[in-house]
Amino acid sequence: MDLLVTNIGQLVTNDERNGELLGVIEGAAVAIEGGDVVWVGLDERIPERYTSHQVCDVAGAAVLPGFVDAHTHAVFAGDRSHEFAMRLSGARYEQILADGGGIYSTVRATREATLDELVDASLPRIARMLAAGTTTIEVKTGYGLDTATEVKMLDAIDRICNVLPIDTMPTFLGAHVVAPEFADDRGAYLDLVTGAMLDAVADRVAFVDVFCDTAAFTVSETRRIAEAAQERGLALRVHADQLAHTGGAALAAEVGAVAVDHLDYSSDEDLVSLARAGTVAVLLPGVSYSMREPPPDGRRAWDAGLTVAIATDCNPGTSYIETMPFIISLAVVMSGMTPDEAVWSATRGGALALGLHDRGVVAPRHLGDLVVLDAPSYDHLAYRPDGELVAQVIKRGKVL
Amino acid sequence: MDLLVTNIGQLVTNDERNGELLGVIEGAAVAIEGGDVVWVGLDERIPERYTSHQVCDVAGAAVLPGFVDAHTHAVFAGDRSHEFAMRLSGARYEQILADGGGIYSTVRATREATLDELVDASLPRIARMLAAGTTTIEVKTGYGLDTATEVKMLDAIDRICNVLPIDTMPTFLGAHVVAPEFADDRGAYLDLVTGAMLDAVADRVAFVDVFCDTAAFTVSETRRIAEAAQERGLALRVHADQLAHTGGAALAAEVGAVAVDHLDYSSDEDLVSLARAGTVAVLLPGVSYSMREPPPDGRRAWDAGLTVAIATDCNPGTSYIETMPFIISLAVVMSGMTPDEAVWSATRGGALALGLHDRGVVAPRHLGDLVVLDAPSYDHLAYRPDGELVAQVIKRGKVL
Repeated sequence: MDLLVTNIGQLVTNDERNGELLGVIEGAAVAIEGGDVVWVGLDERIPERYTSHQVCDVAGAAVLPGFVDAHTHAVFAGDRSHEFAMRLSGARYEQILADGGGIYSTVRATREATLDELVDASLPRIARMLAAGTTTIEVKTGYGLDTATEVKMLDAIDRICNVLPIDTMPTFLGAHVVAPEFADDRGAYLDLVTGAMLDAVADRVAFVDVFCDTAAFTVSETRRIAEAAQERGLALRVHADQLAHTGGAALAAEVGAVAVDHLDYSSDEDLVSLARAGTVAVLLPGVSYSMREPPPDGRRAWDAGLTVAIATDCNPGTSYIETMPFIISLAVVMSGMTPDEAVWSATRGGALALGLHDRGVVAPRHLGDLVVLDAPSYDHLAYRPDGELVAQVIKRGKVL
Repeated sequence: MDLLVTNIGQLVTNDERNGELLGVIEGAAVAIEGGDVVWVGLDERIPERYTSHQVCDVAGAAVLPGFVDAHTHAVFAGDRSHEFAMRLSGARYEQILADGGGIYSTVRATREATLDELVDASLPRIARMLAAGTTTIEVKTGYGLDTATEVKMLDAIDRICNVLPIDTMPTFLGAHVVAPEFADDRGAYLDLVTGAMLDAVADRVAFVDVFCDTAAFTVSETRRIAEAAQERGLALRVHADQLAHTGGAALAAEVGAVAVDHLDYSSDEDLVSLARAGTVAVLLPGVSYSMREPPPDGRRAWDAGLTVAIATDCNPGTSYIETMPFIISLAVVMSGMTPDEAVWSATRGGALALGLHDRGVVAPRHLGDLVVLDAPSYDHLAYRPDGELVAQVIKRGKVL
């Protein structure tokens, strides 16, 4: 698609050459050809050769790179709203899980659903994410916990990605929790997840993920899964230190994970290790909001020199949140980030958390993925938490 | 409008005769004639005489009374997003106000705006509130602080109310802060607010409101304004104990205010006085969220036996929040209410805070104002804070 986006009041480029963290240009325009940005500059100096492109005049609005949501469980079946009410009445997450609820409840529903049903349940959710400006999304498996259902989840992701103009990065999360039928034989489940199940999905996923925490997998089990992933050339992500400080973040740094997510209970030393290892910290303030727990400390993560991403963790248990603008608000209001840091973390930070260097920046040779706000400044995103401020989404140069 | 709403999976009636706080009926239908509810019952027992009405089949969705937003400053001009960023950098609300920002910034912009400009700035905001299920809204003046602009604000409210099918209750808030040109003569401004300015608006407003707090009016000044309102037969509302415990809530109870709003710093004794006086407590958790302050204690207010409402306080400085579903989420997550209490406070509580007994309840002889959710249960409202769950709004029997 050849497109010329003009009359941009405030353009967030995330390109340091344009100054400071967000590389903001006032009075900007962007030219896109073949889905990629080919030119970024001042609106009053648009080169002649782009003026025959289709024009998208945004009338002074703020424009940002498309949001990259680097941690979601957006494909699932079933309804767990009642668990939210149970937790408000004092039930603990770990106890709900131990009683066969929590993740196990979604596993049952996802196993029972046909592929069509799973797509029907999940597609509207991901369509809503796209409409709210998310142009690239990571989606995890992990509600199957048997090979057939894990593969069915990947089939659902493929089907949705074929219908919606959103880029989807699938992650294998067989190590979400131990499958219920292996409750008395964790070792056999680990054999499956690091063996036949992993083999069945290895050529269809970008990452292997492990939920390393008190209610899920130990550090040594996580190490074993990491090794299996690396043997197959797959990059690693780790859920760590969400429920307690178990050492998952330190392990993630040690084994060179691309990203480590949650970090609510991580120590200062963990953060230093992650920064040294170049592992991206993915903070998930929506979980803390929904669980009524203390928020992840975004201020500390930035000050530790980490590359920080923020994501929805969209899932039916602990964060039924779909939109990145709301996560930006939470990151500022609850996690102590500045609006600039939160916007960067929702765009370039998210891209880096997925190992993607072709997006999250508005510059030549990057994807033409843009979000047009119904506001003159990105400051409005944190300022108006229920503002529904995304007016238009442009994906690879196509105005959706 | 004659309408039959059928196939309601879960109907919140707020009618105690149907059981518990929310009077929920599963598998319900509602008949509306001439804008009023005429029948509520089981979907399988709809009387013959309603079956020729226009049918609105909601396919198993949850239906609630229209939200009543009992505290807003939704008519204003100007942009104060930069103040939000200033506060994040440590600036205090009182200091911004003392420096001529805050409310004074909006006063300048609102005075400068023509009536058309004020309507153009405010109508989309109120349209959005309506689309999110708010069928009755209170709107305060108080960004004029001179007679002409206070009247212009009432004109804007009238114009918007003529265009949008939303019921608007205007409140005179000349006593928002002392007008800047009276900074050295508070007494003269009080003379104006209790005299000529009040006379100019008295027959156009439902209430008189006072911002009784450290940065605004003292308790004795508030008492004087209350007396002037009562002399003209106008009911009183009071902003109290938002910034500090100044005694405003106790005064509101003493003078029989309809509602007292904020109450963040009120004492337990204050709450007892308010409960005895029958004054409705309007809690505004969106302000605490946006200001990064401790939330109002909804649990304490309910446990004190108060009639509790929740509202957006939509305003450009301390709570640029437009939608009641998000306020319900905040009331549950931050203020410790149960989902049932939050839904009641957003509907019947809001109506009572405005002295309205003809809405907030789905029962015969009440307005046919309904909200249809894109969800099977009202539990989803708190569970999905950015869910945009309002699928349809019905105002006085008309599907919007």
